[in-house]
Amino acid sequence: MNAPTSAIEQLLLELPDLEWITDEGRVTRLSQDFSWFSPVLVRQLEGKRADVVVRPRTEDEIRAVVGACARRGVPITIRGSGTGNYGQTTPLAGGVVLDMTGYNACLWVQPGVVRAQAGIRLGELEKKTKATGQELRCVPSTYRSATLGGLFGGGFGGVGSINHGPLSAPGNVLGLRAMTIEAEPQMIELRGAEAMRMHHLWGTNGLVLELEFALAPAHPWLETLVTFDDFERALNFADKLANAPGIVKRGVSFFAAPIADHLVQLAAHLPQGCHTVLSLVAEPSEPAMLLLVEAHGGTVSYRKTAAEVQKSNRTLMEFTWNHTTLHALKIDPTLTYLQSGFIPGRHVEQILEMEKLLGGEVMMHTEFIRNVAGLMTCSGLQLVRFRTEERLNEIIDIHRAHDVHINNPHVNIVEDGKAGGPLPAEVIAVKHRFDPLGLLNPGKLRDWPVKTGA
Amino acid sequence: MNAPTSAIEQLLLELPDLEWITDEGRVTRLSQDFSWFSPVLVRQLEGKRADVVVRPRTEDEIRAVVGACARRGVPITIRGSGTGNYGQTTPLAGGVVLDMTGYNACLWVQPGVVRAQAGIRLGELEKKTKATGQELRCVPSTYRSATLGGLFGGGFGGVGSINHGPLSAPGNVLGLRAMTIEAEPQMIELRGAEAMRMHHLWGTNGLVLELEFALAPAHPWLETLVTFDDFERALNFADKLANAPGIVKRGVSFFAAPIADHLVQLAAHLPQGCHTVLSLVAEPSEPAMLLLVEAHGGTVSYRKTAAEVQKSNRTLMEFTWNHTTLHALKIDPTLTYLQSGFIPGRHVEQILEMEKLLGGEVMMHTEFIRNVAGLMTCSGLQLVRFRTEERLNEIIDIHRAHDVHINNPHVNIVEDGKAGGPLPAEVIAVKHRFDPLGLLNPGKLRDWPVKTGA
Repeated sequence: MNAPTSAIEQLLLELPDLEWITDEGRVTRLSQDFSWFSPVLVRQLEGKRADVVVRPRTEDEIRAVVGACARRGVPITIRGSGTGNYGQTTPLAGGVVLDMTGYNACLWVQPGVVRAQAGIRLGELEKKTKATGQELRCVPSTYRSATLGGLFGGGFGGVGSINHGPLSAPGNVLGLRAMTIEAEPQMIELRGAEAMRMHHLWGTNGLVLELEFALAPAHPWLETLVTFDDFERALNFADKLANAPGIVKRGVSFFAAPIADHLVQLAAHLPQGCHTVLSLVAEPSEPAMLLLVEAHGGTVSYRKTAAEVQKSNRTLMEFTWNHTTLHALKIDPTLTYLQSGFIPGRHVEQILEMEKLLGGEVMMHTEFIRNVAGLMTCSGLQLVRFRTEERLNEIIDIHRAHDVHINNPHVNIVEDGKAGGPLPAEVIAVKHRFDPLGLLNPGKLRDWPVKTGA
Repeated sequence: MNAPTSAIEQLLLELPDLEWITDEGRVTRLSQDFSWFSPVLVRQLEGKRADVVVRPRTEDEIRAVVGACARRGVPITIRGSGTGNYGQTTPLAGGVVLDMTGYNACLWVQPGVVRAQAGIRLGELEKKTKATGQELRCVPSTYRSATLGGLFGGGFGGVGSINHGPLSAPGNVLGLRAMTIEAEPQMIELRGAEAMRMHHLWGTNGLVLELEFALAPAHPWLETLVTFDDFERALNFADKLANAPGIVKRGVSFFAAPIADHLVQLAAHLPQGCHTVLSLVAEPSEPAMLLLVEAHGGTVSYRKTAAEVQKSNRTLMEFTWNHTTLHALKIDPTLTYLQSGFIPGRHVEQILEMEKLLGGEVMMHTEFIRNVAGLMTCSGLQLVRFRTEERLNEIIDIHRAHDVHINNPHVNIVEDGKAGGPLPAEVIAVKHRFDPLGLLNPGKLRDWPVKTGA
């Protein structure tokens, strides 16, 4: 018998009891995420895939894989459920995709805090917290499949950020336990601000094992769609609803026409060409919301109580954030999207301005959130009728020229996305400490390896 | 035996089974509130008192008193616990003070909502709601003695308004049941916006029997005092803490030096001359708060967990809002106070400006709140070294000249206080409907009786 010819084959022989996935189709699928939303990323990431996928179930198994990869210099790309949008879980240099979904225990739930293993799906985690009257402070629309570690490593916030801001707002994430990528991996607990140095780094500077998240009290959420004939009135209603301090809510989304025409599962409730505000409001706040609906000339076209939502197993949450994009792209594959941030207090005015400039080519979809400083604003996930990369970049430039911040979702380098430039020294220090060999998701950091002067 | 000579004597004879208070000292005391904070009101209200006080325990008893007063044209002044500050429960025209504290049942607590009789003390009401994991959305610092009806009829908001805004923000008060002042009193339920037409009218346009309030989830509140050497750093810390979306809180108060020197019960924790930020923060948010303390150079000088607070029966809530004023005036009776509103977003800058202009004579005390539109700002309850009414009015004018809104607490006419001018037609219509004879607290409304053209 010949000696194994590749490092990958050596891994499989060394750790035969782990769940390895080698089937080419499955490996290809598990090397991808929702980067297909972007025609730019589709082109850039074409053909990129892992050599093998492993799905460990215990810390011992994770440590064994990591140690073996470190000894052989095999790249590791960490994956949750692949609901990200930037190709963050697509390995650029082959190696192992470390699928964390088998490492999924909820460790404990206390008043205001939950701790769980990184691979737990958010929907499963919330079942545990709901049993104590609590829910996650913010969840992506993909909460059913997305993992806790994935949300931390590649997510921003989501439904609930209207109350607690993005995940990065201090107080939302309390701590984590991470593993170093070394021949003898170490496990290290990081708290507070230090923990956040691994946030939204796409698993490039540490392997997060466990996370401790702050919780919010759960409310019985009434889910409604309110439709309008007029763009501005719909937007103003959404803004007033978002800000109203006496109305408890979990989310407010604004879909300008013709976005609602793409939400075919809700077509019975959305007249052709309407402007739509989707919301989750605590049931006792309904009368106060209806006064706002009336004042703005809206029509409640869909209304489900919390009990009805639970019974039906359909929630409007799965029509918000990038699920809106997903539903639209399924109907019209020529569309793509933007991610943008408006200036708090000027957001309504800026949205009206951008609609005037680009309406038709760019369809306005915004989610109301508090920013990290606590000010109400909108996060835009505009749909764009894609023509060329050049025109897409022009559209991005027009937004920037009007002080609309663009988090370009058509890039797969950490620094080019939400990070918005060079990484802070503290983040690079975490990379040094947790991944001294540079094996985590290589190619996604521009600032690593650190360039030394000539 | 002679016939009774006065309407009051007739009342006592007609309704002998009710609890009447006729003792002059007690009637005088029950005709007063905390208007003694204001030397101006002390002068204006001197000698004003009821002829008699009645303390009914059932709706039947209330109806009997009201019907009897209406038939005889006897004025009725409604009173909770007399924790108001504007002399609103001091009868200007004698008659009956209707003390509601005997009408005090909690009717029900549901998820997000409580309904109770108007005379219940807020502290008692919260014991009921806490048993279900809920608390009142906003309470005055006087919550131990203040009644639900008093808060609605004469209050603004308080601890908790940092989350839910003032009581007047739609969604906070869901409905009420009120009695008309007629020979045959009627009971009428008002919901939402209609109910709010009796809010902060000092019991001049309806007799509120029951109130339905929205609730907030209860958190384990950590109570802290953080002290600073520097005014501006203390203020900035308070502002950042108030806004931080990941830090759950119930209240943030800012006391500029030398206010803390007046809080003698806390003297062990408050170095002479310090600037102080008092806060109630959810226990899981403590680490995030401590990062802010550190960043602003503060010192945590007092820290009690929710369990310690409960055990000690001392809460910092009773050092906030007008309790600060009360503690200070007990030490230095030459002080009086202002009530002011700053412009959201400009509040920090305005507070610094006013400190520069008037520091020394006016001591800055602000409470962080969301305004009715949901924007973070401060409510000021500045302490003023009183010299003359003329100088007090000058100080008020200086504030107004710098766009600081003053709710003058030195007036006892509804329109001159928070209402800030003529009453809306809808409020006058409620007066017509509920008090057609004009017997409720006469003399407190300038817009009633309605003047007819010459």
